[in-house]
Amino acid sequence: MGPEVDAARLRSRLEALSLHGRPAGAGFEAGVSRVAYSDADVSGRAYVMRLMREAGLQPRIDPAGNIFARREGREPALKPILFGSHIDSVPQGGNFDGDLGSLAAIEVIDVLRERGLSTRHPLEIVVWAHEESAAFGRGLAGSRIVAGDFRPADLAQTWNGMTREQAMRRIGGAPERIHEAMREQGSFHGYLELHIEQGATLHRQAIPVGVVQGIVAIDGFEVTVRGFANHAGTTPMAERQDALVAASQLTLAVREVVTARPGRQVGTVGRLEVVPNSPNVIPGEVRFSIELRDLSPATLKELGAALRARAQQIARETRTEVHLTPSRHNPPAHADARVQDLIARSAERRGLGTLRLPSGAGHDAQMVARLCPMGMIFVPSVDGVSHSPRELTSWDDCARGAQVLLDTVLAMDED
Amino acid sequence: MGPEVDAARLRSRLEALSLHGRPAGAGFEAGVSRVAYSDADVSGRAYVMRLMREAGLQPRIDPAGNIFARREGREPALKPILFGSHIDSVPQGGNFDGDLGSLAAIEVIDVLRERGLSTRHPLEIVVWAHEESAAFGRGLAGSRIVAGDFRPADLAQTWNGMTREQAMRRIGGAPERIHEAMREQGSFHGYLELHIEQGATLHRQAIPVGVVQGIVAIDGFEVTVRGFANHAGTTPMAERQDALVAASQLTLAVREVVTARPGRQVGTVGRLEVVPNSPNVIPGEVRFSIELRDLSPATLKELGAALRARAQQIARETRTEVHLTPSRHNPPAHADARVQDLIARSAERRGLGTLRLPSGAGHDAQMVARLCPMGMIFVPSVDGVSHSPRELTSWDDCARGAQVLLDTVLAMDED
Repeated sequence: MGPEVDAARLRSRLEALSLHGRPAGAGFEAGVSRVAYSDADVSGRAYVMRLMREAGLQPRIDPAGNIFARREGREPALKPILFGSHIDSVPQGGNFDGDLGSLAAIEVIDVLRERGLSTRHPLEIVVWAHEESAAFGRGLAGSRIVAGDFRPADLAQTWNGMTREQAMRRIGGAPERIHEAMREQGSFHGYLELHIEQGATLHRQAIPVGVVQGIVAIDGFEVTVRGFANHAGTTPMAERQDALVAASQLTLAVREVVTARPGRQVGTVGRLEVVPNSPNVIPGEVRFSIELRDLSPATLKELGAALRARAQQIARETRTEVHLTPSRHNPPAHADARVQDLIARSAERRGLGTLRLPSGAGHDAQMVARLCPMGMIFVPSVDGVSHSPRELTSWDDCARGAQVLLDTVLAMDED
Repeated sequence: MGPEVDAARLRSRLEALSLHGRPAGAGFEAGVSRVAYSDADVSGRAYVMRLMREAGLQPRIDPAGNIFARREGREPALKPILFGSHIDSVPQGGNFDGDLGSLAAIEVIDVLRERGLSTRHPLEIVVWAHEESAAFGRGLAGSRIVAGDFRPADLAQTWNGMTREQAMRRIGGAPERIHEAMREQGSFHGYLELHIEQGATLHRQAIPVGVVQGIVAIDGFEVTVRGFANHAGTTPMAERQDALVAASQLTLAVREVVTARPGRQVGTVGRLEVVPNSPNVIPGEVRFSIELRDLSPATLKELGAALRARAQQIARETRTEVHLTPSRHNPPAHADARVQDLIARSAERRGLGTLRLPSGAGHDAQMVARLCPMGMIFVPSVDGVSHSPRELTSWDDCARGAQVLLDTVLAMDED
């Protein structure tokens, strides 16, 4: 059956890491605020680098601020197997998002070292910098640079009183050598990331291991509805051009259009603003966001077209103007089919049930997928809660995920 | 047929008053910002007091800041007939809301003086202070005090860097003697106010004179919808507790419930806020206002009950909590039936078509209705636009309204 991870050690390290960014005087259940580039991020990164050293590795910080550590293999000509995650969090986030995959990667190295096991391929573990979009309004920053997606102008962006350049230096990055952080396609034998699901699918079905099929594509739209602001007392119902009535119809249409076909596609109106936003004035303008996610860009295209048609119908019926403008298009990142099979077989050999599912959330893995075959292992999130102190994955599920990561690394090494 | 108003003089005075609060360098069509207690309000009030003096009257400012001016009648034992309006505006308001009724009142006095006509009753004209709710978030301030509705604590309210007390002093009021501004029930023979409709009913039907049946009652509600904020990518549609989906359903239900029966009742969702209001987070909470208006409190009660039932049904179906809390209850103010008839007959004698209709907007007349028989004359608003620089009433309609005011004052004097 192969070597086993140390569940108690993994747990104690998750608890220790949670001290970095925990609210003063609170317990583990209070979660963490460990936003990228904060003091908590800096000290949390120091903690994981200490663990890497204790595991016999020499961590290095690349120019983008990502932490890498390498364990040599028996066959120097082979490309490294890369695995890891991130430790930055959203404000008032949980103890598992990113932390689990980062500490499980170190656990894999510890187990191999303790058992005196070597691999054919070199192993590289990574803690990606700045995964959450809380900082500078856009996440996956470290892995994005490694995948070659960086514009020099980004260094001048400011957030929280600092520029991107200052922020990167704060965590040991070297913006002046940023291009050295970029890696070529084919730089790795493969990439693995263990992560909590952040949805409730595994939890509801009581399945311990999710085999991620890929990270969904996102189509974002900005919608502006223009009606006519008028007196809420003097304007008869029949004469109104109420922008909020039109926006409400379109908000419900998003749900209807998305659920009208089978599948896991989702659609959300998350942001909505009313002008002038006064109880006694009929709304003259409403601006809101629509976000559609699915693994299939073709499905998204059809949903977008259906929404456009509904928007024009609603505009006619409510005598408003509805403008729907694309604001974001993230292509999907497919997990490698062979890596998916390795993950599934590793879990099944340990007697763990698996489910293939897409990731609705973005992950560093989608950036690394541009460079090499990628796979992700999901473990259940209780009630699907994430980005919240209430985020929870049972210690057993954490250990199961780490075990599947270890087994898959070894399987990939033989593959 | 009786004396006629001077249409050209009325127009030139409306144009002259519009200079007080007009944007620098702009023309009449730019409207006015003459918010209560502003420099523009102070200078506009000085202008109308000058016109009163030119009409042979001696204006006085009461402790609440209202401007009154009295012309004695032939029978000193009779109560005065009161008529007028206001000259304060919303920010970026129009040239007719309040201004027309105020200047038409002065025009009535001018005509009587020029023709050497006396009345049995004393005549009092009034320019009410602070009608619009822009200042201190609540309007009808001057007439409200005259009607006896004032709490000493209100003097400490602050807005725009001043207290109510300072604001009242700024326009010549005397807050320390505020109780002297209050008038007893029966203080006047009757009250008349000429005003633009602010709705499009008269304009659409090409009827020059509206006979107001009363000022509608208002029931206001604050609604809080509580769902569950979660990740827009990882939460399947079937698992969502989307507060904005529920709020959108209830927004549409307001329209459905209100239009499900014949009548002029209106219902509006004018203010709506989403928490956390981020494109990639399912809304966890939405707070919004509902406002229902109708002349009949019984109708409002039924509409409110129907909405409550719909809210609970929506809460069950969307697995959210919906709390609907009454926030405002304005009783209706009925126009006196006899005064309505006097207005209608005055208009018809001039060959002007009339329509009886409720006022959906609030007016000082609703406060004065507590003290004496009240009547309001409406003239058409082009396209129903008001509280906007685009607010427009034709000069002909302005003159017709002033003529009906004059004729009704004289009819009331004989009544």
